[in-house]
Order: sequence, then structure tokens, then C-alpha cells
Amino acid sequence: MSSELADVGLIGLAVMNLILNMNDHNIKVCAYNRTTSKVDHFLENEAKGTNIIGAHSIEELCSKLKSPRRVILLVKAGQAVDDFIAQLLPHMDKGDIIIDGGNSHYPDSTRRCLELESKGFLFVGSGVSGGEEGARYGPSLMPGGSTAAWPHIKDIFQKTAAQVKGEPCCDWVGGTGSGHYVKMVHNGIEYGDMQLISEAYDILRRGLNLSDDEIADIFAKWNTGVLDSFLIEITRDILRFKDTDGEPIVAKILDAAGQKGTGKWTAIDALDYGMPVTLIGEAVFARCLSSLKAERVRASEQIPGPTVEAFKGDKQQFIDDLEQALYASKIISYAQGFMLMREAATVNGWDLNNAGIAAMWRGGCIIKSVFLGDITDAYRQNKDLESLLFAPFFQQALAKAQPGWRRVNAQATLWGIPIPAHGTALSFFDGYRTAVVPANLIQAQRDYFGAHTFKVMPGKENDHMKTGQDIHVKWTATSGNVSSSTYNA
Amino acid sequence: MSSELADVGLIGLAVMNLILNMNDHNIKVCAYNRTTSKVDHFLENEAKGTNIIGAHSIEELCSKLKSPRRVILLVKAGQAVDDFIAQLLPHMDKGDIIIDGGNSHYPDSTRRCLELESKGFLFVGSGVSGGEEGARYGPSLMPGGSTAAWPHIKDIFQKTAAQVKGEPCCDWVGGTGSGHYVKMVHNGIEYGDMQLISEAYDILRRGLNLSDDEIADIFAKWNTGVLDSFLIEITRDILRFKDTDGEPIVAKILDAAGQKGTGKWTAIDALDYGMPVTLIGEAVFARCLSSLKAERVRASEQIPGPTVEAFKGDKQQFIDDLEQALYASKIISYAQGFMLMREAATVNGWDLNNAGIAAMWRGGCIIKSVFLGDITDAYRQNKDLESLLFAPFFQQALAKAQPGWRRVNAQATLWGIPIPAHGTALSFFDGYRTAVVPANLIQAQRDYFGAHTFKVMPGKENDHMKTGQDIHVKWTATSGNVSSSTYNA
Repeated sequence: MSSELADVGLIGLAVMNLILNMNDHNIKVCAYNRTTSKVDHFLENEAKGTNIIGAHSIEELCSKLKSPRRVILLVKAGQAVDDFIAQLLPHMDKGDIIIDGGNSHYPDSTRRCLELESKGFLFVGSGVSGGEEGARYGPSLMPGGSTAAWPHIKDIFQKTAAQVKGEPCCDWVGGTGSGHYVKMVHNGIEYGDMQLISEAYDILRRGLNLSDDEIADIFAKWNTGVLDSFLIEITRDILRFKDTDGEPIVAKILDAAGQKGTGKWTAIDALDYGMPVTLIGEAVFARCLSSLKAERVRASEQIPGPTVEAFKGDKQQFIDDLEQALYASKIISYAQGFMLMREAATVNGWDLNNAGIAAMWRGGCIIKSVFLGDITDAYRQNKDLESLLFAPFFQQALAKAQPGWRRVNAQATLWGIPIPAHGTALSFFDGYRTAVVPANLIQAQRDYFGAHTFKVMPGKENDHMKTGQDIHVKWTATSGNVSSSTYNA
Repeated sequence: MSSELADVGLIGLAVMNLILNMNDHNIKVCAYNRTTSKVDHFLENEAKGTNIIGAHSIEELCSKLKSPRRVILLVKAGQAVDDFIAQLLPHMDKGDIIIDGGNSHYPDSTRRCLELESKGFLFVGSGVSGGEEGARYGPSLMPGGSTAAWPHIKDIFQKTAAQVKGEPCCDWVGGTGSGHYVKMVHNGIEYGDMQLISEAYDILRRGLNLSDDEIADIFAKWNTGVLDSFLIEITRDILRFKDTDGEPIVAKILDAAGQKGTGKWTAIDALDYGMPVTLIGEAVFARCLSSLKAERVRASEQIPGPTVEAFKGDKQQFIDDLEQALYASKIISYAQGFMLMREAATVNGWDLNNAGIAAMWRGGCIIKSVFLGDITDAYRQNKDLESLLFAPFFQQALAKAQPGWRRVNAQATLWGIPIPAHGTALSFFDGYRTAVVPANLIQAQRDYFGAHTFKVMPGKENDHMKTGQDIHVKWTATSGNVSSSTYNA
């Protein structure tokens, strides 16, 4: 074991692959774990013969690091992060850097960043995506926080990250909690992608009555086109994976999907910021509904669906339509996600680099795809792009996809196959491209029953309805001028 | 002015109609307002010739009330409520009752209830719905909090409330913040109803190219059937309401719908509790999208929709289908709302009376309808009803509605008219009645990339996949046993 100081300290051995990955890039890591026997076991096994060193206490860890110290926490989000920060500080010097690589909620990262900066330390909250494979061979890293930390960690982070077309899937995201914010949205988008894929699977399975092997072949083909991505690839492999009895294992897996919070956080954040991130919302709710397994089984015995005839159309055409439906819905989901980040950047004062974010997600992470290269290009061509739906590339893609997308959604509707994500994507698209939506009626209702007032439609102004005015109509003879301050709707 | 003590004190003159309503029922009210000139103005005008008395300070108000004192706050939710409570307490005795009739968020009501009870006072958080009309002639009142307060306020509340079929639209809801919880869900459902109606309006307007007057006639007819309700009634009247130039005023109202929080709270709560209340979620997001008016207008100029031919089918049949689609979607929305309250009751330890809640909403409030009588009946027939979708009445209604509902949703999908609420309702219905949803694939994906594990499907157990076990598959040669505690998806 070398006595040389380490480049970086890492607390938490649950993701030891990240340490091995760093070691591969000649980054010297000192590992520490609360249960110190795990450190010894790791050094004697996975880390044997590497440059990795270990520590049996926080103090020892800090004594073995170069200055400025860089310590990465990979521990359970929440109190554990605060606890380790409190343990670290007595052994650190001003200018040292604490990096939280766990799944912290971004307001916590913002708080920690401000607190540590006020004490003279630097903080980085970094999204880390990629699962065990990504950690080992190159994850997507999304660091944000104290800008002054970036020069000291850039080399380590960019070497460790996945590489796509010669570029690392890691760049500086922005201030305070922005790294974890972007990771949260990444995870929300991941929920959406998975829901869309599962709906496509359901349509192929129950609509076209295809076998898991036949569906795997379709995903294999899709993985060579616009949908080329990690999630499509593993879906292909999952559907082909057989249990010891030769049956597809997927059919033996309980259809109750868990969720660990980040998808939910994204949906709640969207509601709080007033941004219509409907697809992630539906994806989270679909997991909630899946969890009501017993209730669904009881309902299935009592509530009949439509009487469905076998599909008589052109199967290949329908499968091609479905590919376009999935692609178009995915475009909507990413457009919504970037709209949310746009709003979050405004609210939090972050100068987010959209092209950089898309580039970070191109590789290493769960949502990695060719598609994210197209998003990167769209933002590189126009960094002030208002929305992905204004990018010529995606406008053309949606124009091509639109007819098949509508046919698939209509067919699933008639079949009785649930399409919460595909359905909401299309409704969003149709609402987004509609100059006058029927919210005028909602405003009239609100003014009718609660005197909430409304504004006049541009072009319809007159002497009693002027631009910018809060207008109230006396809808009925008894309609008064009650303030809407206590009655909400 | 009588020198007799008042039955109830009321703080806040924004909703003076409620005071006049109480006065009509021989309830003596003492009114106070922070801006005391409003008290004088009220006594000299609207309250002239009534038994209503006034107070110019909190101390005076408390000196003019019978024991136990009953003080209703109708002030802006938030800090103002806490401020008035703090001002009241020095002038109150143990056993006195503070009632918050504003739109407080239920966790605040739970906190206030526990705080006041710990000091010997009683607290009631009451939902109040009905707008200005309801306040004047009978609102829906949803009181919850200190159970000991109920006997002291029951008579006042039930006399003031709307009456339907000889029953007051007011009953005791449950403990702590349950009154405001139920009001919150009511408001969320109201968002859903309004969104559904606006979608139906959009389909009639843009799909069938009908005029506002023609659409008003359709709503007038619907108001005599299963959709008979306040919101359908006012929609009819709104669509007929002309501006001074003879044009329908609805077309002059800006299509950007405001929202004041309670719908959003419901959707966030649903996400937090893990209940798929998708329709309210979509309704809130639809308002968010409507607010992006300028962005929508720009998008409408660049993003074409489908090429739509004029409707060639049977118009009346389609209108009847739409009535059924709206009705079925509404059933789903209420079923989701009651599922949410079911979960909230479990989490918060409330013994909610579903039949009572439906009965309270039958009259006085914005969502009042014949339909709520049917829900009341369903819960009275079976108080342990798991979900409205298990009630024979609603199962029959949905069986009848289903074909038309699917036709409408499919047609709107092809037309390019957004149906976020109708669409999510049908997807929920199809998911709810499906024994095996494709969440098994999602679980497989999560286990593949993050070792999140899954459980075995009932009936598919074998020697290596046992009931209740957390199962992990080695999907690839390099797939390890990484814990999923830090990597989320």
C-alpha cells in the first residue's frame, strides 16, 4: 500500500464500482465506510492490487487527502449526509470540498452549499446516474454548487464520467442545488421513459397478442432507429431473459412498481412551479396505481372492458406507428422536463446550460440515447431555444410522427389498454400548439361563482374590457362584488 | 342596536353574505373587521334593520359573545389566521371555540387544533364552499377539529348550511385538520369538473363547429340528466351571456386560467400519499399550460395539427356520447378523490364518514349535483365500499357510458383536440380494471440497472422465487449485487 496522499476521499462503500472506476483513471482514492470491516474486505478483495487505500475513521480519511481535500459522500440521502458533514468539518481546512454524490433533494443541497460556504468550505451536490454499470465504466455526473470547487474536481469528474464522441458526460451545471435539481429531473424523465416503454409493451402484448420474444425482436429493431437507447436495449434483453424453466422471467415479476421519491419530487416541483410536466406526473401515478395490486385484481373481476375484436389491420404498419408514438411522446416528455428546468433556473437564479445538460445525459446514465445527442445539437444550434418543440429537428420529427401517434392512441383507447403517458403527451402537444384553449370558460366560471375576475382576450378589448384590467361581470341579478380573497377555487 | 350577547363572532367582512345568512336564521352575529370603518359601513348598509351587531376591537368582540365564545375567522389563510388567534386568546376563556372558516391548508389546521387544545381551547377548521351565493343562501360547511366543539356549533352550522331533501349540507367531518382536508379535496374535484366541462366545450366548439348558443342548449339539456349540477347550469348561462355588442362574452375572456393553490395542494397530496388522483393532477396542469398563453400562441403559428375533415357522423349520437364521456370521467374523478380521502384517513387517523362527506357536497357548494346524491346513496348502502367503482350503481353507469366515452376520446385524439382530463380518466379506468399491468417490465428494468429487486407474481412462485422475497436477477455477466440504497430510479 502506497503512503502517498490520495486525490479524493470517498465515504460509503455501497457503490464501490465508482472507486474502481476512478482507480482505472489513475485517480488515487481513499475509501471509508461507517462499518469499517467493509473497508478491509474491500481492500482485500475488489481493490486488491489497485492504488486504492482505506481509512478506519473520518480523521484518518482526512489525514490521507491532498489539499484542498475532496471528499465524496455516497451515503443515504437525508440526515446521514448532514451527520457526515458535521463529522468531517473538524478535520478539514477552509477551501476543502465536500461533494454529495447521493440522491439528495435539491433544497437540501442548496441549504448545505450556503451553510458550508458561510463557514469557508466548498460544497458540491452532484447527480450521479448510471447504476452499477455506469459507476464502474463511466456514469453521467451532474455537479453543481460552489463554483470555486469546479477547477479542483473537474479533472477527476470528467475522467470518471462516461465519454460520448470524445466528450465527457459531465460538465458544471450551476449554483447551489442545481446539480441535484438536474439529476431529479433526469430521474423524472427516466420514470416517463420507462412508463412509455411499458405502455408500448402492453399494447404489443395485449393489443397485438405478441409473445415476449416477438416483442423483444421489435425492441431490437427499434434500438437501431430513433429510439436507440439504453432503456430500449435492456427492454429487448429483459424480454428475452428466460427463467430456468424456459419461460420469460418478465411474466413472473409482480406488476407493482416501486418508487423511491425522485420521480415524485419532480412532479411535485412541477406543480409548485406551475409547469405542466404532465408525463412525469402520469408516470408516477401509474406506479401508484400499479401498487394497488389487490384492488386492481378485485376490480378486474367486476368491471368489464370493451369487447375487442382481433386486430385486422396491417400489423407492421401499426408497429411502425407505435414506434412513432413512443418517439413523439418521448419528445414531449423531454420538452416538458426542459421547460421545468427553465422555470427552476429563473426561480433559483441558476444559469443552466441546456446543451450541456443534454450532453451530460447522452451517456453513462439510465436515459442515455441517441436522442439526447439530437437535443444537444438543438440547444447548441440555438442556446436561447424557448422549447424543444420550437427546434426545427423536433418539429419535423413530430410532423412525421403525428398521424401514427394519433392512430395508436385512438386504437388503444378503443381496445381498453391504458395509455396514461402516451395520452397525456398528445394532449399536451395539442394544447401547446393551440392559441385559444377553453380556459376562457374556466375563467368565466370562476368569475361567476367566486368573483375571481378575468382578463380580456387580446383583440377583443372594448370600452369596458381593457387590456390588463381585472374584469368582473355581474352574471346574475344577485351577483355582488365579493372579494375572492377568502374563497378559492 | 340590541345589547343582548351574540351567538357567534365573525372576524373578516370579505364574506358579509355569511353574516346575513346567519341573521336570517335568528343567529345573532357580532361582526369585526381589522379596518373598523368597514364594520360601521356594513352596519349602516347591508346589516341595517337586522339583529347584527358590531365590534371595533377584538376585546369588544369577545365581550359581546355568549359563553362558550364562538368566533369564526374568515380571513386570508396563512399568517393572518395565527395572528388573529394570538390576538383572541387573551380575551377568551378555556372551552371557548375558534373556528377557521378560511381556505387554510390542512396541516396548519392540524397544528392549530393541537396547539389550542393543549391550552384548553377548542379549534374547528371548517371548509366553506359556495361562493357568494352559497354564503348568502346556504353554503356547504365541512367542520372538523376538536370534537368537543361540535355540540356547541352544530345548530348554528346546520341552520346556516344549504339544505337538500330536508338534510343540512353540513355534518361533523372528523378530527384535527380533516375539515380543511375534505374542503381541499372538494376544491381539487372542482378543478377536475371544470376542466372536464371545458374539454367538452372545446370538443363541441372546435370538433362539431357549434356556436356558443348551440352549445348552451346542449348544456341546458345535459342539466336535466345525469350531469344535472351547478357547474353545468352556470356553463349554460355563461355561454348565453352576451356582451353589450351582442357577442358571447366567453369569447372575449382570456384563456389563461388562474389557480389559487387548493387544486395544486390536492395533487401534491396525492403524490405524497401515493394515490393515483390523475384527473385533478391533469386539471391543475391544464391550467398551468393555459397560463403559458404567449408561448402557446407562438407554438400555434409553427406547429400544425392534423388535417381534419368536417364531422360526417351522427351529430346527436356524438353529443350523447360526449354526455356519457363527461359523466364517466366525472365518476372516475370522484372515485379518485374518495380514494385519496381513504388514504388520508388512514394516515392521519381520521374516521371519515364517506356518506356524510358526499351528502355535505350535495348542496351549497360549487360541485353540488344530483350525482352527489347517488354517491351518498352508494356509501349509505355500503359504508365499507372500497371504491365508488365497486358500487353497483356506478358499475352500471360506466358499463353504459363506456362505448361512447371511448368513441369520444378516440375522435378527439384524431381531431387534435386536447383531452387531458377525459383521457386520463379512461386510462385510469382501464388500468384500475386490469389485473396485470405492465409494471412488471418496469420492475425488471429497475432490477436490471439498479438492482432494485422485485417480488414474484402470485401463481408464478418456484424454488428460487418465493412469495414476499426481494428477488434480484443477474441479468448480465457483469451484473453485481450493488445495493440500491444510494442509486434511485
